[in-house]
Amino acid sequence: MRTALVIGTGLIGTSAATALSQRGVVVHLTDHDPEQARTAAALGAGTDEAPDGPVDLAIVAAPPAHVATVLADAMRRGVARGYIDVASVKGGPRRELEALGLDLASYIGTHPMSGREKSGPLAATGDLFEGRPWVLTPTRDTDTEVLNLALELVSHCRAVPVVMDADAHDRAVALVSHMPHLVSSMVAARLQNAEEAAVRLCGQGIRDVTRIAASDPGMWIDILSANPGPVADLLSDVAADLDETVRALRALQSSDDDKRHEGTSGIEDILRRGNAGQVRVPGKHGSAPRAYEVVAVLIDDQPGQLARIFADAGRAGVNIEDVRIEHATGQQAGLVQLMVEPQAAPVLTAALRERGWAIRQ
Amino acid sequence: MRTALVIGTGLIGTSAATALSQRGVVVHLTDHDPEQARTAAALGAGTDEAPDGPVDLAIVAAPPAHVATVLADAMRRGVARGYIDVASVKGGPRRELEALGLDLASYIGTHPMSGREKSGPLAATGDLFEGRPWVLTPTRDTDTEVLNLALELVSHCRAVPVVMDADAHDRAVALVSHMPHLVSSMVAARLQNAEEAAVRLCGQGIRDVTRIAASDPGMWIDILSANPGPVADLLSDVAADLDETVRALRALQSSDDDKRHEGTSGIEDILRRGNAGQVRVPGKHGSAPRAYEVVAVLIDDQPGQLARIFADAGRAGVNIEDVRIEHATGQQAGLVQLMVEPQAAPVLTAALRERGWAIRQ
Repeated sequence: MRTALVIGTGLIGTSAATALSQRGVVVHLTDHDPEQARTAAALGAGTDEAPDGPVDLAIVAAPPAHVATVLADAMRRGVARGYIDVASVKGGPRRELEALGLDLASYIGTHPMSGREKSGPLAATGDLFEGRPWVLTPTRDTDTEVLNLALELVSHCRAVPVVMDADAHDRAVALVSHMPHLVSSMVAARLQNAEEAAVRLCGQGIRDVTRIAASDPGMWIDILSANPGPVADLLSDVAADLDETVRALRALQSSDDDKRHEGTSGIEDILRRGNAGQVRVPGKHGSAPRAYEVVAVLIDDQPGQLARIFADAGRAGVNIEDVRIEHATGQQAGLVQLMVEPQAAPVLTAALRERGWAIRQ
Repeated sequence: MRTALVIGTGLIGTSAATALSQRGVVVHLTDHDPEQARTAAALGAGTDEAPDGPVDLAIVAAPPAHVATVLADAMRRGVARGYIDVASVKGGPRRELEALGLDLASYIGTHPMSGREKSGPLAATGDLFEGRPWVLTPTRDTDTEVLNLALELVSHCRAVPVVMDADAHDRAVALVSHMPHLVSSMVAARLQNAEEAAVRLCGQGIRDVTRIAASDPGMWIDILSANPGPVADLLSDVAADLDETVRALRALQSSDDDKRHEGTSGIEDILRRGNAGQVRVPGKHGSAPRAYEVVAVLIDDQPGQLARIFADAGRAGVNIEDVRIEHATGQQAGLVQLMVEPQAAPVLTAALRERGWAIRQ
């Protein structure tokens, strides 16, 4: 790939343009707001001058609702050899393009699984996609040359290409992102009018469950509007489990032994299925979660304490795989949970004890 | 308080006994399994010899289902001036005690909001309760002397006392702990039979939402069985939101503009209510979450990298308030998110840049 055209210089478009420019590709930038394209160009993402002739790859980075129109226009003008979009849903745009009667051999719908809380070209960065999955949805009619251009883009962005069917992609993101987002909002919504005394008792569990409920509603309305079917199907499955669980809890209130036993079975069933599903969530390096050991260290809230812990761990040659800081309520103490490979846990515990840290057993 | 009797030397009982012993209180230990009490004594939690006469405070640390029986027995034998239990639900045990016709002036139901994945006396530690809320549920009939004994215990354990009505407590823990736990299980359960290609796309969002679904079903069956009513009520509220949201998503699939507009409003409503609830989840020091700035640093998976980052932050005099390590999929790179006070962010960014770290803007 020697030339590219990025249509839409928001966060994703400008980040991809920056990565390509950094790898020596000549990138042309355009946006319905020329000011945005100028900003992206000023940031080093490419040039906002129009290309002389067709480029190798056109990357349409417009919101899902506009993708088909923008793509159709670009394809009719013949601005590139290959065309991709990067919208977070894939089935709808493809069907719209088909309805417009376009030849889709030169098009691949793609979705880089990256994002951040900020948007616009100023938030863009060439490493946004590093190590993240980038879904490609070629069909049997896709030109191999176009597939290779898309793979080259993914490679330049140091993302991990994952090939999927467009509708399978939409069901997958409904499962791993859209449904959990709405459920998180529903748990958080219960706190809106809760008594202050109850809210004070919140711990790390509900904090984690509700974290993503803090996201911008506008962006999520766009995402969910583009994928309502698969999300509704999954929420209906959750609703069925919810009804069963409410029934089981009501049975536990019964004075009848058999009923209570039924209730216990119902609760056990959902807890066990939750265990079985949770264990599949990939951890580091995209694999199943490794069984790390936790070494828990008490700290107070002084600058430099974490630094000293990590320095002491480093000196012991231990690689810390993950960290959680558990905050105490109402006072300055805290607990740092260091996750390490099982064989490293005794080494780390001994090393930190020797250096005077209080380790919780 | 000079003497105490701990009845039930599991994790909570032995931890409280250890804290009291460390503060000079003479603690007697007993358990229905004498071996457990002997282990707790050997760990320095107290003595497993019976007291000569009534102690100041008896602490019943038995599972919810046995609390009332054990307490009633202790009160009839007059083993102490004051009695508390530490079970995770409070309404049921109180009603059972009332039904047994006991004078409850010398009793307070309490609940330390601490726990860990391990159980038994070997997992106990005198600092288990440090900085955590410890709920006390006195009534207007409670002796002030007994309330003060309970407050002294909480103070010795360095926990934060929170006074609540017993039933209000049970509704509160249903809200902040039991309901989110079951909902997390229901989200995780959707992954049990999902295709591997879909599971690969999991990111930090679903990882956080499903983390607590990994917990031991046995313990959670006990907890939920003791508090089915309030949990069922909250899950019914979630179910109502869920039904509304499914309806809104189905409306978004309509070809009718008015219907689609209704659908958008429905989705916006739950997202906004989620925002409003999430913001109430307390962060560090029990206050509303502070607006930390995030400084994101790219690392690869080498031992000592985190140590060097923290050492460099420490040298810059910056206190790191929280850390998240975002794992990349399929390769060795990762992103460390350092949360700091807003005024510290530029200082930290500059200091880390100067030392050669790649900071994501």
